[in-house]
Formats: sequence, structure tokens, C-alpha cells
Amino acid sequence: MQFHLNGFRTGDPDICAQTDTTGMPADSDELPGTVDVLIVGCGPAGLTLAAQLAAFPSIRTRIVEQKAGPLELGQADGIACRTMEMFHAFGFCEKVMKEAYWVNETTFWKPDPDRPETITRSGRVQDVEDGLSEFPHVILNQARVHDFYLDIMRKSANRLEPDYSRRLVDLAVDPSASAGDYPVTARLERTGAGHEGKTETVRAKYVVGCDGARSAVRKALGRELTGDSANQAWGVMDVLAVTDFPDIRFKALVQSKSEGSILIIPREGGYLVRIYVELDKLNENERVAGRNISIDQLIAAAQRILHPHALDVKEVAWWSVYEIGQRLCDRFDDVADGEDRPPHVFIAGDACHTHSPKAGQGMNVSMQDTFNLGWKLAHVLLGRSSPALLHSYSEERQETARMLIEFDRNWSRMLSAPLKSESNPDGVDPEDVRRHFVAHGRYTAGTATQYRSSTLTGSADHQHLATGFPVGMRFHSAPVIRLADAKAVHLGHTLKADGRWRLFTFAGAEDPMAESSTIRRLCLFLDTAPASPVRKYTSKGEDIDAVLDMRAVFQQGHRDLDLNRLPAFLLPAKGRYGLRDYEKMFCPDPVSDIFAMRGIDRTSGCMVVVRPDQYVSLVLPLDAHADLAAFFDRVLLSGVN
Amino acid sequence: MQFHLNGFRTGDPDICAQTDTTGMPADSDELPGTVDVLIVGCGPAGLTLAAQLAAFPSIRTRIVEQKAGPLELGQADGIACRTMEMFHAFGFCEKVMKEAYWVNETTFWKPDPDRPETITRSGRVQDVEDGLSEFPHVILNQARVHDFYLDIMRKSANRLEPDYSRRLVDLAVDPSASAGDYPVTARLERTGAGHEGKTETVRAKYVVGCDGARSAVRKALGRELTGDSANQAWGVMDVLAVTDFPDIRFKALVQSKSEGSILIIPREGGYLVRIYVELDKLNENERVAGRNISIDQLIAAAQRILHPHALDVKEVAWWSVYEIGQRLCDRFDDVADGEDRPPHVFIAGDACHTHSPKAGQGMNVSMQDTFNLGWKLAHVLLGRSSPALLHSYSEERQETARMLIEFDRNWSRMLSAPLKSESNPDGVDPEDVRRHFVAHGRYTAGTATQYRSSTLTGSADHQHLATGFPVGMRFHSAPVIRLADAKAVHLGHTLKADGRWRLFTFAGAEDPMAESSTIRRLCLFLDTAPASPVRKYTSKGEDIDAVLDMRAVFQQGHRDLDLNRLPAFLLPAKGRYGLRDYEKMFCPDPVSDIFAMRGIDRTSGCMVVVRPDQYVSLVLPLDAHADLAAFFDRVLLSGVN
Ligand SMILES: Cc1cc2nc3c(=O)[nH]c(=O)nc-3n(C[C@H](O)[C@H](O)[C@H](O)COP(=O)(O)OP(=O)(O)OC[C@H]3O[C@@H](n4cnc5c(N)ncnc54)[C@H](O)[C@@H]3O)c2cc1C
Ligand SMILES: Cc1cc2nc3c(=O)[nH]c(=O)nc-3n(C[C@H](O)[C@H](O)[C@H](O)COP(=O)(O)OP(=O)(O)OC[C@H]3O[C@@H](n4cnc5c(N)ncnc54)[C@H](O)[C@@H]3O)c2cc1C
Repeated sequence: MQFHLNGFRTGDPDICAQTDTTGMPADSDELPGTVDVLIVGCGPAGLTLAAQLAAFPSIRTRIVEQKAGPLELGQADGIACRTMEMFHAFGFCEKVMKEAYWVNETTFWKPDPDRPETITRSGRVQDVEDGLSEFPHVILNQARVHDFYLDIMRKSANRLEPDYSRRLVDLAVDPSASAGDYPVTARLERTGAGHEGKTETVRAKYVVGCDGARSAVRKALGRELTGDSANQAWGVMDVLAVTDFPDIRFKALVQSKSEGSILIIPREGGYLVRIYVELDKLNENERVAGRNISIDQLIAAAQRILHPHALDVKEVAWWSVYEIGQRLCDRFDDVADGEDRPPHVFIAGDACHTHSPKAGQGMNVSMQDTFNLGWKLAHVLLGRSSPALLHSYSEERQETARMLIEFDRNWSRMLSAPLKSESNPDGVDPEDVRRHFVAHGRYTAGTATQYRSSTLTGSADHQHLATGFPVGMRFHSAPVIRLADAKAVHLGHTLKADGRWRLFTFAGAEDPMAESSTIRRLCLFLDTAPASPVRKYTSKGEDIDAVLDMRAVFQQGHRDLDLNRLPAFLLPAKGRYGLRDYEKMFCPDPVSDIFAMRGIDRTSGCMVVVRPDQYVSLVLPLDAHADLAAFFDRVLLSGVN
Repeated sequence: MQFHLNGFRTGDPDICAQTDTTGMPADSDELPGTVDVLIVGCGPAGLTLAAQLAAFPSIRTRIVEQKAGPLELGQADGIACRTMEMFHAFGFCEKVMKEAYWVNETTFWKPDPDRPETITRSGRVQDVEDGLSEFPHVILNQARVHDFYLDIMRKSANRLEPDYSRRLVDLAVDPSASAGDYPVTARLERTGAGHEGKTETVRAKYVVGCDGARSAVRKALGRELTGDSANQAWGVMDVLAVTDFPDIRFKALVQSKSEGSILIIPREGGYLVRIYVELDKLNENERVAGRNISIDQLIAAAQRILHPHALDVKEVAWWSVYEIGQRLCDRFDDVADGEDRPPHVFIAGDACHTHSPKAGQGMNVSMQDTFNLGWKLAHVLLGRSSPALLHSYSEERQETARMLIEFDRNWSRMLSAPLKSESNPDGVDPEDVRRHFVAHGRYTAGTATQYRSSTLTGSADHQHLATGFPVGMRFHSAPVIRLADAKAVHLGHTLKADGRWRLFTFAGAEDPMAESSTIRRLCLFLDTAPASPVRKYTSKGEDIDAVLDMRAVFQQGHRDLDLNRLPAFLLPAKGRYGLRDYEKMFCPDPVSDIFAMRGIDRTSGCMVVVRPDQYVSLVLPLDAHADLAAFFDRVLLSGVN
């Protein structure tokens, strides 16, 4: 954590100095007439976006929610490794790690071949493969994730708080609007006591519908979720129970011979457990409510499946019968096919894709959607990029959702199908289920996403220089030693949710202190050349690393380098005092050598351009100054900010 | 973290359900007439004690402070590994690790032999030896440590808040008081606006003077700090500065030829740095204020010592000229030598020992004092132990302080002495300084403390069964795998600041699932024998582990043991629902085997009794049931609570 740059401040460094929230009357009970971004819905998608935008004091953001206050229980609970990496960027992964259940191993139970009316453990697999991420796969009440985001918002310069008890009724877009206008007009109905029926109108530059599966924003855009016509119904319950089922503290998939299957998800705190009970598929347009399924039925089903183990439920913290189909929107913004204008309205999360809870993806993918969108909106609103950048949101995330739904469909089918047996030779073999689970571990961990080549994702021509940082995929962190203080840190943990680009440079087999070293020449280019993206896109008054933040990793040990003989660009003067930033240079960790771990060419080194949302844009040779400049010339705007 | 045992509760699990604070009018602006414990002073010592006592809702604690509010800057900043272990027990070590500077390496600078008017780096040493603790040595503003304690207090069942603007004037002890009485009468003066001059009288069962070097409590007891007659004066400044001194982000000891020496302590946030400048020794009874030392003089001195490196100070966050002698009280309570009654008043921290800031011990030792006292007071107030237990506080901590002062005296002398040179062959060799630093690393890390044999510290007769858990020293944690969920955890992290005793049992070379296993027999004894300390000292209505919390470590891997075939005592039913606690059993971590790391006898295993403040009381063979019972019979009271 870096703080005190512009002077010592007492107290919690996570609490930003409050800024003058021009035109945003914080105390007023009413929404302002105009905002930069209006977010609809305080689910994981909406809150990720709000927390991201809260990092930019000059962006006027509001987030509305129809409910009267924050979520308190229920809904999703799976937090994938990739999501933890993002939580680190937001600064609260430590809290999640401390409080959550860690999924270390998953076990599989099937009918005992000798006594098929009882179950037996058929396999155990490590949940996350070694080295996939430095973070664990964890389970925590969705409400707590909301709390952590709300905390960031509350501590931001604008002290952002959701406006509760407000339901979006409809919205209208003026497609002819030009930059600086407020092309979207949103109508909201207040639902709080004393305000019932009151309507507010807000004009926004951008509206983002994070309003869940029945999204009003999606409907206002005339878009539809399409896919399976029938819904799958799931019973889900968070319970405190006594059982002699030995794997009650493991994630466990239990398939019985004739009573169906359950999925056990141990929960935070050591006692709570979530149990998913698969129910029959619903007919087209049938609603599960029509079946009048009770909690007693769910418990009884779980008890039958766990036989001969007892399950004595003492308290039901939350339960739901949750119906869902694999469905997807064909576009995640308001631009019609063939239309050639930047989008003004977006949808994210469950509003544009729904899938079964079995793969535990709902909350994770929803947050990744808006983490993708957040920095792009900020870039455009701050004048760093042209509004055309915003097309990439739907392009990148719709494809990701499509693949996820494909995956989820196969996985759900597998879990719901009858088991293979003598009488049913076409059934599913539990062994296949286990194998499928292992093979798709990276997928469910959220680390398999790879964006296609585009303005933002460069070619893979130089991928051989760093095979472990695939272009289009998330930057896979590795340990390093910080040069200036010998601290063992993770290189990827320099990636904060602050809207900045990172340029990781890995020195080749040379002395970086030498006058003519490739690293020094790159620094010289960035510092002084007219074509340098740092010079072109960083405004006067901004710190040198405000837009593009360069970090260097050398091959020497930290005791073998002399700080004062390395490029001054890597000890930049920052802030009102010109204090030096000592956190730009790193050395390999002798035990876990990043060059070996990530397949970095030791002879020539390389540079890796990483987006503000932690995805690798480009791998280049260290001397490819012009290519680097050309990449940013396509993405950034100069002279505007 | 374990929570939801007695039912699901929404929100932050660190926030305890609020209890009825009988007789403690939280809203009232006045102190109650009687309290169980009155703590004087909101420094590290007082706050550690308050946070500890806040864990017991039935104990009525108040903490008063003469200042108008919490500390905001300055004072101490070094946090030793041992202190981090304690912070883990209080639940906030993650926050400290995230925010603090980590001391990874210490460097030494001395006059350049070729150009003695300039300095050169003469050595670098790893700051903490490998394996000494799982926690780092860190540096953080004392005010932030206070904040974390205040946060625990605020979230406790009694919502404890300090009573600021109250100065203890004097106190009187009625030595003839009996149990249940309030033998100490304290008189406090209010200093807050509108209350000036108002006096309050509080009667307390116990008063703890954590009121610093000029302790009014100490004076009221008629005790004195004795030791060095002269004070050493130190200049200390927390600054934001620009420098080309390359080790500005390392803890660095710089000894110049003729300008004296400085100690550089990098601080949290990446920019701030603390610099200690050694000033001349003061004459007897001389006060440093008389010298009129200014911040400009301190900066100039540091600049001269760092020559030829520049030091351009941009902001001074805090500075002080801090005078201190190595002084000690001969007893830390109100019992006169030869008197045979339990103590009612205690002093802790700077109130009873002072030392130079160079070894960074002040804050650490002060907190360890009251961590030692807290559980003892709780035991007595809850009726778990007889008041005689309280004698052990002064016995244990006075000796620890005495040894510390001895150490500090040598270390300070070494740092202040002129350097060896041709003209001064008797001076100190910087090499010796470096060697001394390395040799005493365990000492400054706080892990060298060893309590003598006493009621609380058993004999070392069976030390060979676990050579890595020396009797009388803090329990040195090691990694293990939790059986029920395969999570990699630290065994020592089960030691929370909750006033409970732990019994760690390490199984021998046997099948623990066997009917006749030693572990099973021990469980049977604890569960059912009339002599069992669990049966004798746990009250009706309390959880089975409320007083003595048994944990077992087996030698098998977690996949090789069957939960249902292990002693049910290790899956205890707890809370209002009888939910099972799955966190009592562990297996070795294959990579870091606890049996090898801590020298545990693999054939016979052993048990290790650990005090509520994490110190090892006793190592015993697994079948030494009677010895175990006898130990607790000496320490605990039955039937009282
Ligand atoms: C009842 C329920 C149970 C679930 N159970 C599980 C589960 O067991 N496992 C699992 O993995 N996933 C579960 N999910 C799905 C998971 O919670 C979602 O995938 C995830 O929350 C998606 O996040 P989101 O932000 O896109 O949408 P949501 O979390 O649905 O958030 C949408 C928010 O928008 C608000 N909103 C909706 N319309 C409007 C409007 N017009 N105006 C203002 N505000 C509006 C809603 O009140 C809500 O707070 C469940 C979802 C629900 C609703
Ligand atoms: C000005 C100053 C500078 C220091 N600088 C350093 C340093 O640079 N490095 C270092 O290692 N250590 C330093 N120390 C020492 C370090 O802070 C102490 O060792 C540590 O704080 C001891 O903790 P304590 O709780 O025993 O006492 P303290 O932290 O001194 O706390 C005592 C508290 O009691 C209050 N108090 C005193 N008398 C009364 C009364 N009669 N009634 C009510 N309240 C009262 C005081 O206001 C104070 O808040 C410094 C201490 C001081 C005072």
C-alpha cells in the first residue's frame, strides 16, 4: 500500500480525502438532475462498477437500487480465484480470505456398488490446480461481498452511497447526442416510506443496467435473453445442521441411485453449510412457485440422498427455490447491429446472461463484466479514450458469456443425467463427472477467459518472449523481490483497480546499469521521445505513472544492483513534493524465479502491456518502442485531458 | 474464523452481539461508581488490556485517558514478530501486515576507510532469521495500533469505548478487602470542556496503571523507577524527504566518523521515513527541553551524518526530542515485600520500565505485559482461578523487563560509543555491532522470553518429547492441514485472545482410530474421568472447550483418516444447537512436517499445555493423565463459576 505521497495524514489510509462533490448534493435525499453514470442495481455487477468508478473523484456516479437497503443473506456464494485477484486490486481480498471458507478439495460420492441404496466416496480431487493463481477459491455470503464494496465506496473521495428504494421504470436514449450531452433519460420510481409513487428523472451520459435477470434496462433496450426454453429448478438452503456425513466440510457432489443428487458447499464460519438439491426440470413457461415446494421437502430430499448418513437441520438461515435457464443476450449495449455510434447504455451480469448455480459462476462473471466496463467508462469520461472504446465491452463480454453458457450447459446436463447402470447403460459415469470437473478447473476458476485480437488485444507475434503471459488472458502474477526494500511481493499485486495501464518490463541478459542497456534506452524513450505514450498521454500535473505505469524486473539479485546506477525513470519523482517512488523495480525471487515460471526469454527479455482490468494486451521485444507507441496511439487520446 | 455457532447472524462477524451492560450506562457521560477493572491510560499497554478484557462480557471494564481523544501520530512504531503473533490472536494482524512497512533486511554503514569523511555500506543482514516466526517484523505508526485495538473494543459485546479527558489524580487501596469488594478507590479529574475541575470517584476491584513513564498509579503505590541516573536524549523525526541515500527503504544504522550516528526506519506507505538522531547524554536531572533543540538542528545533524548523500526534507509529520534512561521498578503491583495478600493494583508498560528506542522494544514489551495480565484478571474475576494467580504477573514480567533493560543497556552503549580508529583503538568496531545485532535477533523479535518454573510453568522433565516447544517460552506455531476440510493452516493460529487454555496433543506412532489408541484414552479421560480438568473446571452451560481446548495432530495424511472413527471428543457438540466443531483435528503438512520442525517424538507423541497468552506451560507424555490433572488443579478453581 502506498500513501502519504502528498503529505502525512492521520488515520485509516483506505479513507480518501473527501473531495468537493460538485453538483452532487450528498446530503440531499433526491437524485441530481444529471450524472455521468447511472448504475441500476446493487448486485455484484453494479457494486463492482460503482467501486471502480468511485476511484475517480471527477466522475459523477450514482447507483440506485429498488430494495430498501443492502442485501443481508442468500443468493450466490462462490468466489473464484480470478475474482480474488480482482478483489486484491480493490484492496479487500485479505478480508475475504480471513472470513471465507476455502475450497481445498472436492469430493465425489456415488451409489455404493455393493449396496446401491447407500452412497460411498468415489473420489477426491484438489479443487484448484497448483500454481493456477496465488489466491484460493473461496465461499462467502454474497452479502459480505456487497459489504466490502460498499465500504470502498464509502471511503472514496466522493463518499459514494447507493440510493435505495428507487426502481428504474424506463429509459430513453437520444442516439444523436454528442459528447458532453446527457443522451439517456431514466425515470425512477421511489418506493421508500413517505415517497411512494414519487418519480424522479435523471439524465445521464451512461446508464448501466446491473438489474438482474428481470432487467428493466434490458427490456427498455428491447433486448431479450434467449436460450433454453425451459428452466431448471434448484432448491438451495443455507443451514446449521448436525450430520455424520464425513465430508460436510468439503465441497461434495453426491449422486444417489434413485433419489437425485445434491451439491454440498461448506460455508464461512465453520458451521454453516449450503446444500443444493436438484429439482425436476420445469416445463416451458412453468414457474417453480406453481409447485409449492417447501423447505421441508428440500430437507427430506437431502436426507434421502445422504442415506445412510443422518442430517439433522437445526436452523435454516436462508432457502430458495431458484429457477434458471441457460440464456444469453445477443448484445450487451444499446447499439443496433449495423449502427455506427458509440453505446450509451449497457447491461451486465444476470441482466444479460443466466446460468445454473452449479458451476458457481453467476456472481463471478457478473463482476468481471463490470470490471471490464468500469475502466473503459472512466477512460472515456476522463477524455483519455474516444467513446469508440466502449464497443469493446459487448464484444469481449458477450463472447465470454456465450462460452460460459456452453460450458454450463454441458456441466449441468452431466450432473442432472441419470447415472449409468445395468438398466441404463447410456447414463453418466460418475468417473466422467470427476474427469470433467478436473479438466474444467481453470474454466471455473475464471482464469481461462481469453479476449480475441482487437484494438485492445494485440497480436501474439512475440508470445514466445513470455509464454506464461498469453495475450488476451489475465496477467498471471508471480513472486518477486522488491529492489529498494527486499520485500517479497507478488508482481501482479501492483495491479490496482485505479484505471491505469501497466508496462512490465523484464530485462534480458545484460547489465541494466550499463549506459547502453535496453532497459535504459526504453526508459529514455518513454521519458523523452515525442512519440512516447507516457509523454503524449499524461497530462501536466499528473504523476508520470498516472496513465502508464512502468515496472521493471531484473535478473540480478537485489544485493547486486545499485539503485543509483539504474534509470532515474524507475525512481520517479511524484506528488506535490516530488518524492521518489521506490516500488518500480524488482528482482527474481530465488525460490520461485519469475523468468522460469512465466517462460520469459532470458536473453532478450521483453515487455508486457497490461490493461487496467489486468488482461495482457501485448507482449513486445524491449526495443519495440514504435510498436508500443502505436498500440497506445490506437487506444488513447492525447491533449484532451 | 468461527461464527454462526448459535444461529446465523448477518453482517460483519467481528461485531459481537451486544449484551446487556448491566450497571454500565454506556450513554452516560459519567463513570460508574464501581467497576471490576479500571485501566488508566490509552497507550499500547492499556489498550491491549482493554481489548483482552472486552472479550468477557460479564467483566465490567473501564479505561480512562487524560488526553481528549485517541493518539494521532508519533511515538513508537516497531512491531516485533512476537507482537504480530499476539495481534493474530486479537484478529487484526492481517490489517497490520497490509498497511505496515516490512523490515526485511538491515544494513550497516560506516566511515569509508579510504575517505573517512564519507560513509559506505559495511554490511547487510536479513532482519529476522528464517523460521523464527510465521510473521514479519514490521513498522507502523503506534496510533494505528491503537486504532485496531479501539476497533476490537468497539465491536465487543460491551461496546467498550475509552473515557477520555480524565486524569487519575490518586488512588487508595484497602488491603483488608475480601473477594467481591472494591478495595481500590480512584480519584479522577475531568479535563474536558465544560467539566474542568470536576472530580469523579470510582471504586474498583482492580486498577491497572498503564499511564506511561510518569505514571500516577506508580507514584500512588510509592514505587519508583530506578536505574541510570542520567537520561539519553534522542532526536526523532518522521519525515517525507528526497534523498539519494540508496538504503532509505531499509532499516539502516549509519555511523559516521565524527558526526555521530543515525538510525533510519522506513515507514508505512512507501514514502515516510523515521530518523533517529543520537544526541549527547544528559546530565543527572537535566531535562532535554533545557537544550532547546530544534527540528532544524536534527535535520542538519542527519544531513552531516549522511554525507555525501543529500537529504532534502519536504515535510515533518512529527518530531520529538525524546529522553529516556534505562529504568525499572522492583515490583509491578501493590504488594509489599513479605506481605501475603493478592494484589489489587498493577502497573504495566512504561509505567514500570523504560528503555531506549533503539531496540524498538517499548511498545512491544508494554503490550506483552498486559497480555500476560489480562487473562489472569479474567480468570480471577470469572472465578476460574484464585486471586493468588495474580502474583505471577509481577514475578514474570519484572524479570522479563530486567533482562530487557540489561540487553538494551549493552546495545545502546554499543551504538553510542565512538568508533574504533587509529587514534581511538578502544572504540567500537562496526563489525561487532553487526554481529551483536544478528546474535540478538531473537531477543528483539520478542521470541526469547522464557518464564521460570512456577505454578504456571511446569518442569521441563519431558522436554525431550517436543524439543521445539520449550517450556516457559511462547508456543512456536507450525503449519498443519486441517483434517475436516484439508485447509492448510497454522496450528498456533488456533490460539485466540479468548482466555482459554489449549491442550495440543501430538499422536504417536499408532493408529489413532484404533479402539485402544493413546489419543482415544486421553479423550476418554478428559471426557469422563472425575479428575478430568475439562469436567472439573468447565461449568454447566459452557461449551466443552470453554476452559481447556484440546486439539489433536495426527501423523497420517488427511486422506488416510476417517472422521467417524476418531474420538467423538474431537468433534464436540457445541452451542445451543449442539453443532459439531470440525476444527479440532489436524494432520502434518507434507511440505513442512510439524513433527520434524518442532522435534516431536514420533514414537510416543506428547501433549503440550499452552496458556491463554500463548506460553507453553508443560510438555507431558500422552498418558500422563494424572500430571495433567494435577497441573490444572494448581491453577484452576472448580465449582466457583
Ligand atoms: C433469489 C436468488 C437466488 C440466487 N441463488 C443463487 C445461488 O444459490 N447460487 C448462485 O451461484 N447464484 C445465485 N443467484 C444468482 C446470483 O446471485 C447472481 O448471478 C448474481 O447476483 C448476479 O449479479 P447481478 O449484479 O448481475 O444481479 P443481481 O445480484 O440480481 O442484482 C440485481 C439488483 O438489481 C436490483 N434491481 C432489479 N431491477 C431493478 C430496477 N428496475 N430498479 C432498481 N433496482 C433493480 C435488484 O433488487 C438487485 O439488487 C441467485 C439470485 C437470486 C436473485
Ligand atoms: C513523546 C513520546 C515519544 C516516544 N517516541 C518513541 C520512539 O520514537 N520510539 C519508541 O520505540 N518509543 C517511543 N516512545 C515510547 C513508546 O511510545 C512507549 O514505550 C509505549 O507507548 C509504552 O506504552 P504504554 O502504554 O506503557 O505507555 P504510553 O504509550 O506512554 O501511554 C500512557 C498513556 O497514559 C496516559 N496517562 C498518563 N498519565 C495519566 C493519568 N494520570 N491519567 C490518565 N491518563 C494518563 C497518557 O496520556 C498516555 O496516553 C515515545 C513515548 C513518548 C511519550
